This record gives sequence, structure tokens and C-alpha cells, in this order.
Amino acid sequence: MTPIDAKRPLQLNENGQLRHFLSLDGLPRELLTELLDTADSFLEVGARAVKKVPLLRGKTVCNVFFENSTRTRTTFELAAQRLSADVISLNVSTSSTSKGETLFDTLRNLEAMAADMFVVRHADSGAAHFIAEHVCPQVAIINAGDGRHAHPTQGMLDMLTIRRHKGSFENLSVAIVGDILHSRVARSNMLALRTLGCPDIRVIAPQTLLPVGLEQYGVRVFTSLSEGLRDVDVVIMLRLQKERMQGGLLPSEGEFFRLYGLTEQRLALAKPDALVMHPGPINRGVEIESAVADGPQSVILNQVTYGIAVRMAVLSMCMSGQAAQRQLNQDAGEHN
Amino acid sequence: MTPIDAKRPLQLNENGQLRHFLSLDGLPRELLTELLDTADSFLEVGARAVKKVPLLRGKTVCNVFFENSTRTRTTFELAAQRLSADVISLNVSTSSTSKGETLFDTLRNLEAMAADMFVVRHADSGAAHFIAEHVCPQVAIINAGDGRHAHPTQGMLDMLTIRRHKGSFENLSVAIVGDILHSRVARSNMLALRTLGCPDIRVIAPQTLLPVGLEQYGVRVFTSLSEGLRDVDVVIMLRLQKERMQGGLLPSEGEFFRLYGLTEQRLALAKPDALVMHPGPINRGVEIESAVADGPQSVILNQVTYGIAVRMAVLSMCMSGQAAQRQLNQDAGEHN
Amino acid sequence: MTPIDAKRPLQLNENGQLRHFLSLDGLPRELLTELLDTADSFLEVGARAVKKVPLLRGKTVCNVFFENSTRTRTTFELAAQRLSADVISLNVSTSSTSKGETLFDTLRNLEAMAADMFVVRHADSGAAHFIAEHVCPQVAIINAGDGRHAHPTQGMLDMLTIRRHKGSFENLSVAIVGDILHSRVARSNMLALRTLGCPDIRVIAPQTLLPVGLEQYGVRVFTSLSEGLRDVDVVIMLRLQKERMQGGLLPSEGEFFRLYGLTEQRLALAKPDALVMHPGPINRGVEIESAVADGPQSVILNQVTYGIAVRMAVLSMCMSGQAAQRQLNQDAGEHN
Repeated sequence: MTPIDAKRPLQLNENGQLRHFLSLDGLPRELLTELLDTADSFLEVGARAVKKVPLLRGKTVCNVFFENSTRTRTTFELAAQRLSADVISLNVSTSSTSKGETLFDTLRNLEAMAADMFVVRHADSGAAHFIAEHVCPQVAIINAGDGRHAHPTQGMLDMLTIRRHKGSFENLSVAIVGDILHSRVARSNMLALRTLGCPDIRVIAPQTLLPVGLEQYGVRVFTSLSEGLRDVDVVIMLRLQKERMQGGLLPSEGEFFRLYGLTEQRLALAKPDALVMHPGPINRGVEIESAVADGPQSVILNQVTYGIAVRMAVLSMCMSGQAAQRQLNQDAGEHN
Repeated sequence: MTPIDAKRPLQLNENGQLRHFLSLDGLPRELLTELLDTADSFLEVGARAVKKVPLLRGKTVCNVFFENSTRTRTTFELAAQRLSADVISLNVSTSSTSKGETLFDTLRNLEAMAADMFVVRHADSGAAHFIAEHVCPQVAIINAGDGRHAHPTQGMLDMLTIRRHKGSFENLSVAIVGDILHSRVARSNMLALRTLGCPDIRVIAPQTLLPVGLEQYGVRVFTSLSEGLRDVDVVIMLRLQKERMQGGLLPSEGEFFRLYGLTEQRLALAKPDALVMHPGPINRGVEIESAVADGPQSVILNQVTYGIAVRMAVLSMCMSGQAAQRQLNQDAGEHN
Repeated sequence: MTPIDAKRPLQLNENGQLRHFLSLDGLPRELLTELLDTADSFLEVGARAVKKVPLLRGKTVCNVFFENSTRTRTTFELAAQRLSADVISLNVSTSSTSKGETLFDTLRNLEAMAADMFVVRHADSGAAHFIAEHVCPQVAIINAGDGRHAHPTQGMLDMLTIRRHKGSFENLSVAIVGDILHSRVARSNMLALRTLGCPDIRVIAPQTLLPVGLEQYGVRVFTSLSEGLRDVDVVIMLRLQKERMQGGLLPSEGEFFRLYGLTEQRLALAKPDALVMHPGPINRGVEIESAVADGPQSVILNQVTYGIAVRMAVLSMCMSGQAAQRQLNQDAGEHN
């Protein structure tokens, strides 16, 4: 019997398979690559006349959204349906009662309803991780965005986009532009790019929107868009979260666009075949101009398509990882 | 290779099969009859113990409702489920951002999620047509009501109701009563009745609720309910959209009922076996009295049943039309 | 042909099978036992890798919630999905129009959409019964809670919990504690316990929260928690409906907890292996303290699991009862 390794990350089972999907932090390159390969195969399913495989038949996927996001919820719903799972969606308000209790009791109740996976969206950083630590062993937790911390399926769909259009990560320069400070997407992308071997990761933002401690990600920091974009292969624009801009960190939308908005002129500083990416929904004329968003270098809509495939890959890999762990536990039980 | 006919209506593919379903305008009699025949066959499915056929298995039907309508959304949801499709429903608010952008970007995103059909409800006339013009070729658009313009599935379920109860349209007198001016149902019905060969179509309304240009539909106009109802075979009452009556076009609900409400006494002016129809939900005592709505001549609830069958017919015919067009495009590609 | 027995309860068909599930009132012990046995078998389905049986394939279950309850709706949705039914959920507001009309017209419309079962939640006592009296013969009505009247699936899941943990009802003392006056759960539990042969049913509540006419249920009434709990085998705590406490029936939450809250100390008065039950969601520190709710005697989360199985049993038994009645009616028709 393999002894349980206390330092093995929460996300992996004893065989190193994915069991929860919380953050890209600590996931090995092989696993990310396997995930991209699996997503590639699901892309083919999405293009079929019958867009359905029976992998999760009879499984219950529960979308537990403590923070509303129609867009992300819909993509997870579609991914689960195409794997033949049953889906229920709950919008959980965190306002009425003390948050900790609600989260905990809601969790225990959903477990008791024999849900197999919780797709969790929460405004607090670390919420998905907290849930994974406390959930019963047979449930897999998928992080669909937690506070400023992580949005790992977005990160992986961005990686799939880059790999499908650029082949590999080995010789690429990738720039991430915008509100790095508040962006869980930025964090997930920096981690993924680094793990997958991207040699030149740049972040471009005004000083006020840069978090401390960026060095740990091995990135180069630019405050000038023009300098940062020079000769990059990929530009990942972040969405300007207007509702988070209250604190006077920026003078105005117009000012932001003037300094950090992606225009055709500025894009010309990147390589001629540079990709333009954005997690959507885009604020036209704020972080990106329409000519670029809808232009020939934009792969923004491909990202949406790849997003379904990545979510199918995550759901099915976590389900396999859970099943394998159950088997391991059973075998261990029998040998004792 | 057949050259693309620029004047061929948007709704039909190169073989004349239904590809989108936007309006009854321009659809030939043969196609409407085929639709009614198909709906007839689906009525039989709705009466079975297992109300499900696998025609749309692995297809994704997306309800995109820019204007809320639980009732219509539910019937499309049921229709799609009984065809074994996967269904997702989105309520899209048009308030927050500029409408054009939202509509367009929402559209592109849903396309990218590999939805096969959009069932669209929108407050603006022409919205469904606009979307069909701009959607990618593999998606079918179904109009579930756009402004004052059209509500073609309602029109066809009314035609199915008439045909099932009266056999054919050839010798019928049909009166449409109420707020013609604001009614997309009225417009769809006039078009369908005319195409299907109904020789006597009457509209009955106060002068203030009659649109200009009614002559084009080949209808006879009455402002007196008693005169208009005389010897008709079918009475189609329209719903009084109270929220649209702000502009002082009518003195009061009571006054409307006194002049244009359908009572047993007035119904006696029609043929003894005249059908009473209404798109629902009814305003009892405003446009119709309960004794008539619940009386022996009323087929209001049959309309609801037929509505599911008609929506199943529309969804499956559009799906076939899309598939056939794809095949045509492929064959054309191979011959070039 | 068997003559229709006017006194046969609405819930049963001519063979005595369940046809609607409205209240535990009048249901014979054999039927409740059959329901518990059926639920037992569905518990096994919930534990499988593929949690799905095809019993209700092609059937439409419609959740009609006139009163919102995410929790109850979700458990019925899961139960229906695991039986392979199609599910649609409607939240019906009762505010806009006169209630009677809305209820009636909504009902007729759903019938016409060929729904097979309505799961009804309503704030008015008797609403489910009223609907069952007026619905067309082929639709089964399931009461998911109506006013203060009944919540029979909750009652039966409580019985399943007791039977699975205590084996039978024959020698048990069961105490129901809290707001008996406003609780449909209390009423359903008293009826079920009595029918199933529990010899000692106690209710414990302040005088102001005791309804009149409790004698008919054959229960013993206590106003002191300490006295009432002595040597019981099962403690069923009720949820304090804070929103119903406006009328000054109780001084404060703190006061309620001081007098009627279940603490470890008080639980020690019951038998050492006494079960602690609660319909959820719990108000920690109001009717129950966390140490008890999460303690070794608590079966609160098991109740949630059993709830899905009981709802699967109710849905499938009602569907069989409806089908059998249809067959009886058909046979009768053929013999006339």
C-alpha cells in the first residue's frame, strides 16, 4: 500500500492524476500537456453532428455560483451536457447569513445529494481550495474563478489557444496587458506559461495595477505598452473590471485607452503574425479597439470554442482521477 | 453547381428547404403545409408514454431571450427536450451596454460555443432577421417573437389549430379581433391565412388600433365587432397588451370590453360551430369573458398543445435544412 | 366495471395505488411501507457509478413553485433526472394577478403542454389538494409543501431515516421540538409516525406555538424540553421560521434557544443512541447548537441523501399509479 504523501498537492491523487482542479500552481508540465491533448480530442467532438459522448452519463455536475457569471456557467453547463452528465445550477447568495456557515452547510448538503462534482465560483480568493479541503472524498471540486486568486480553466483555454495557433511554447514571447493587480486570469496565465516553458513572459500595466511579488512568476514588467509589445508572438489583453476601478487607481476609461488600449497601430509593434487574445466580454474602445478585436489576428472567439473543450477535459480528467483514487482506497482496504 | 440566388429568401436553403424560421412572409404554401404535416406527426409523439424522439440528439438549442417570456421559453424548451436536444437558456439584458454591441458579441460567443440553433426573442422588430443575416452558416435562427413584427410559431400553431378543427382553409371566414396595431400575432396570422388560401380574412379593431397598410394582406377591416363576427368560422382574439396602452389609445379596460370583448351573446353572431382562439395568457373580462374562454367552442388550450408540436416541427425542419445546405456546400466545394 | 368510490381518497387509484401525493393523511400503513421499501432500493441507485435508471424516460416533470425554495426544487430536480425524466422548472409569481385565476390558467396550460407530473409548492394550505381535484386525469400532483398544511415527502424522508437507523417504529419514543404551530413538517411527521405504529409521539413547544386539536394525532404534549426529551429514541428539531415570528409569539431568538434549543447537555436526557434530526437548513445557535448538529448522533445530512431516494420513490410510484388507472379506465371503456 502506498503511504499517503502529506505534501502531495490537494489537486492530485496518489497516482498523480487530477482529482480537483483549483489552480495551476504546482501542477506539473506533463499534466498540463495531457489536459491540452485531451481538450484537443474534445474539440473534435464539438465539431461532430452529434456533439455528445457518454463519459459522464449518470454523474451529477453541480454548478455552485456564489458570484454570478452567466458566461462561465453556460460554458460549464454545455461541457457537462456534452459529456452526458446531469447538471444542476445553484446561485447561492452569500448576503443573508454569515458566509462561513452558509458555505459549509451548503457544501455538506450538496454532498449528501450525491453530486459528483462542484463547479465553484466565489468572490473570495481561496474559496475553491477551502471547499476542496473540506469536501468528502468522492466529490471533485472545479474552480471556476475565486476572487483575485485563480481562474485555471481560463488559463488552460488560453494555453490551448496558443498551442493550436503557435505549435509550442518554446520560443514564444507573450505579453499580458492591463489590470494585472485584480486579474485572476493574469495569475493563471503566468503560472501556465511558465510551467509550459514559455521563455519570455511580459506583463504590461500602469504602476498602480501591478501587484507586488511579480518576480516569483519569472516575468518581465513593462509600464509602457509600446515597449512591452515589441516583437511579441502573443498579446493577451485583460478585461478592465470597471466595478473594481472605484479607488481612483486610474483617471478614466478614456485615459486608460489612450495609454494601454490595443490599437492597430500599437499591435503593429508586435510580430506580424502575433495573436490577439482576450477572455471576454470585451469593452470595445476601453482596453481594445474594434478593428483589433474583430481583426485578422484576433483569436478571441476561438478562445470561446476552446473553452468548452478545456472544460470537458477538466471534468472528465477529474472524474477519472476520483474513480482511480476510490479504487486505490478500496484495494488498500482489502490488503489491510 | 447551383449559383446562389441573391433574391432567394434568407429563410430557405438552395433546395427551398427551411433553414431559419423568421417570418411567414414569403414562405410558400407547400412549405407551410409541410410544416403542418410534420407538426401533426409530432402531436402523436406528445401523446405517447415515452414522449421523446432522437432527432436532435447531440444538438444544442440555445434560448436567447432579450425579452422575458416564461411561457414561450418553456414551450421551446419542452419541444427541444422531446427531440432529445440539449438546451441552454439565457436571459440577456439589453439595458447595460449599447444594444448593437451586446447583440453582436453575444451572438458571436454563442456561435463559438457550437450551439446549433438560437431561439431568439427580442423587443425590436427585425432583430431575428438581423441575427440570421449575421450568424455563421451552421446556426439556424428561430424567431420566438420580435417587437411588433412577427411571431411565426404562434402563427403556425394557430393554423394547425384551424386545420385540425376545420379540415382546410378553403371556405373559411376568419376574424382577428383586438389590438391589431401592436400585435405580431395578428401579422403572422394574416400572412399565414392568406398563403394557405383562406378566402375571407377579417380584422376587427377600433380605428386607433389599426395599422396603416392593411390592404396588402387582403383583409377586410371592421370597426364594429358585431358586424365583423357575422357568420365567421373562426374568431382569433388578441391579447390586450396593457403595458402598450399607455398612450391614451383607449379610454379604459372596461370600455374596451364593452366594445370589443368577446361575450357569449356576441359569439352567437358567428357560425354555431365557430372556433374561439386566443394566444394566451388571457385577460378574463378584458378581451374575453370566462364563459367564452372556457366554453365549448374554445380551443385555447388545444392551441398550447399544438404549439409544442409546431415548435418541434420548426426545430427539426430547420435542422434538416441546415444539414442539407452544408452537404450542398460541400459537394459544390468538391466540384470546384 | 368497479364503481368509483366517492369516499376513496383523491390520492389513490381504484386499485389503491398512489396516484397523487398530497398528504400523509389517510394513506394506509402498507402504502407508506411500500414507499419506504421503494426508496430503499433507490438509495442503492444513488450510490452507483451511473446514478440513473430509465423509469421515467420520455416523461415530463414540471416543478411549479408558487413559493421559492431552491433546496426542495433541487432535490426534486435531481430525483427526476436520476429517473431519466425531462424536467422544467417554473417560478410562478402570485402577486400580479388574482391568485385563483393564475393558478387555474397556469394549471390548464401546463396540462396542455403534456406534462406528466406537477411538483407543486405553494404558500396556501390546501393548494396542492385543490390542484389535484381540478387537474386532468393523466397528470399526477406531488405536494412539495403547501402553507402550514403538509410537506409529505419531508415526512417520509424522516420516516426512512428513522427506519434505517432504528429498524422499525414499534418500540420507539419520538419527540418533535419547536414551532409546531407553523410547521407543515410537524404535521406530516405526526401522521406518518402514527400510521407506521410509533407508540410514543411527543411534541415539545412553548404554549404559544402549539396548535389546537393536537389530541387527534395521539401525541403527548410537553412545554418543558427537559421533560419531553427524557429517554426518547429520536429527536426531530423543527426549523424556526424567523419570518413567521413577527407576531410577538416569542421574545427573541436568544430566549428561544435558552428554553428550546438543543444542546449537548439536554440531548443527554434522551437515550444514549438517540438520533438527532432536522429538516434543514439549520439555524445554528437558535434551535440547535453546532456541537449537536455536527455531532455523532446527528443524521441531518443522511436525511438529505434519503430525501432524494424518497422523492424518486414518490415520482415513480405516482407514475405507475397513473398508468394503472389509465389502463383500468381503458378496460372499463372496452367492457361498456
